[in-house]
Amino acid sequence: MQSSTTPPETEMLARFADGLANVADAMAMTYFRKPLDVEQKADLSPVTQADRAIEAAMRESILKEYPAHGILGEEHEDARLDAQYLWVLDPIDGTKSFVSGMPTFGTLIACLFNGTPELGIISIPPTGERWMGRRGEPSTFNGEPCRTSGRHRLADAILYTTTPDTFDTEGRAQFEALSSKVAMRRFGGDCYGYGLLASGHIDLVFEMNLHPYDYMALIPVIEGAGGVITDWKGERLGLHSEGQVLAAANAALHAEALAALS
Amino acid sequence: MQSSTTPPETEMLARFADGLANVADAMAMTYFRKPLDVEQKADLSPVTQADRAIEAAMRESILKEYPAHGILGEEHEDARLDAQYLWVLDPIDGTKSFVSGMPTFGTLIACLFNGTPELGIISIPPTGERWMGRRGEPSTFNGEPCRTSGRHRLADAILYTTTPDTFDTEGRAQFEALSSKVAMRRFGGDCYGYGLLASGHIDLVFEMNLHPYDYMALIPVIEGAGGVITDWKGERLGLHSEGQVLAAANAALHAEALAALS
Repeated sequence: MQSSTTPPETEMLARFADGLANVADAMAMTYFRKPLDVEQKADLSPVTQADRAIEAAMRESILKEYPAHGILGEEHEDARLDAQYLWVLDPIDGTKSFVSGMPTFGTLIACLFNGTPELGIISIPPTGERWMGRRGEPSTFNGEPCRTSGRHRLADAILYTTTPDTFDTEGRAQFEALSSKVAMRRFGGDCYGYGLLASGHIDLVFEMNLHPYDYMALIPVIEGAGGVITDWKGERLGLHSEGQVLAAANAALHAEALAALS
Repeated sequence: MQSSTTPPETEMLARFADGLANVADAMAMTYFRKPLDVEQKADLSPVTQADRAIEAAMRESILKEYPAHGILGEEHEDARLDAQYLWVLDPIDGTKSFVSGMPTFGTLIACLFNGTPELGIISIPPTGERWMGRRGEPSTFNGEPCRTSGRHRLADAILYTTTPDTFDTEGRAQFEALSSKVAMRRFGGDCYGYGLLASGHIDLVFEMNLHPYDYMALIPVIEGAGGVITDWKGERLGLHSEGQVLAAANAALHAEALAALS
């Protein structure tokens, strides 16, 4: 008998999601480093015709293959959020990188089953790198198993955050409290930082003001690689989290990082 | 009759420098994303065995081919600084990126003739990208001519700096004065930002605490692509500059950026 919380067809979904990422990659590269109109959205984040076109193409594929599934994306209207399966899409995570020619932006694809992320993809079009995570299975980097680092002390850890500009006063204080205890901190990265974490090259990512489409795909990737990803209170990230994200290479490092936050 | 300030053999030197970059690229990739011992130097910047080995290999090639030339590098002792030709080398610019698996570090190679940079190379091993500049000639990106952007107003400009952590109080104030006037500011990049500038993807780079091996190679690349690169006072960068660098896509933007600094 099939459990109500175990999806019946994760393997097929994973293959389908991989195909979505292939389409997104190819489309992103047709726009990358070409002239683009950059608009500012209400939250002041930039958006281009590339973001919109890539998400529209992914939505069309999903709707065709799985018409009953829901879709939550960065650039278009939500659809069927109460469906058992929910796709969470960020066509271009790191739009500032994308519009400035930096090759470290990515496409994020998650598929949730009853609210739990079953699979996640971080795909980096310019470098051809792809991380994939499936709940309860080892995450992969370009098809090979990947693993977070064994560094379990803050004093040895490399910490990434995309930019200090996203922090409010309280967030900045938390960031300083944590980053003053690590071996190295570095800015820039967007979703790429989480890939580096999943492959053991860095040890911590600390960010705020993320949306579900920014973090849902990261969860299976980080967890399946041996890491821990929660909000700043150590709570599991969900569709209604506040967007504060702490990702760590392992449980010991995550606990020490949480303790460093006041 | 040959002018005393025109080097006789820039073409040969450029080919030789390109070969140096090939060696540096190949060596860097044997170390990239592999376990490394990271040491902290006296100025707290990180260094690895990769930095030292790559610079040693480049020095050996130079000494063999051009024994009378001088060499100034980041990781080893200066040699013959008063020679007519002086090579200025940074084996890995962006060591923090390098040790954390970010593919945007680079090797910087400059050759100076009587103190003036005749040629410069920015080479990015993981992405196979290379910018080359030669004084008085169009700069190239992977062998094809490249050109800075035509954006000449701060309000339209994209500004990069590697990290806010390098700024002292005064530098931070200058950075805020400038970056508050641009369309977008972004952190991360190291030498990659100057390549993006030379190819017209971004418009400004603003940094401090750079050393000659960080900026000498950038000068011919930026200038040959149509850009302007000086210190924060608008003075030409030399071996004894203070390490404050302002690079802009064109003279008009450079002038507006200078005026924004107090």
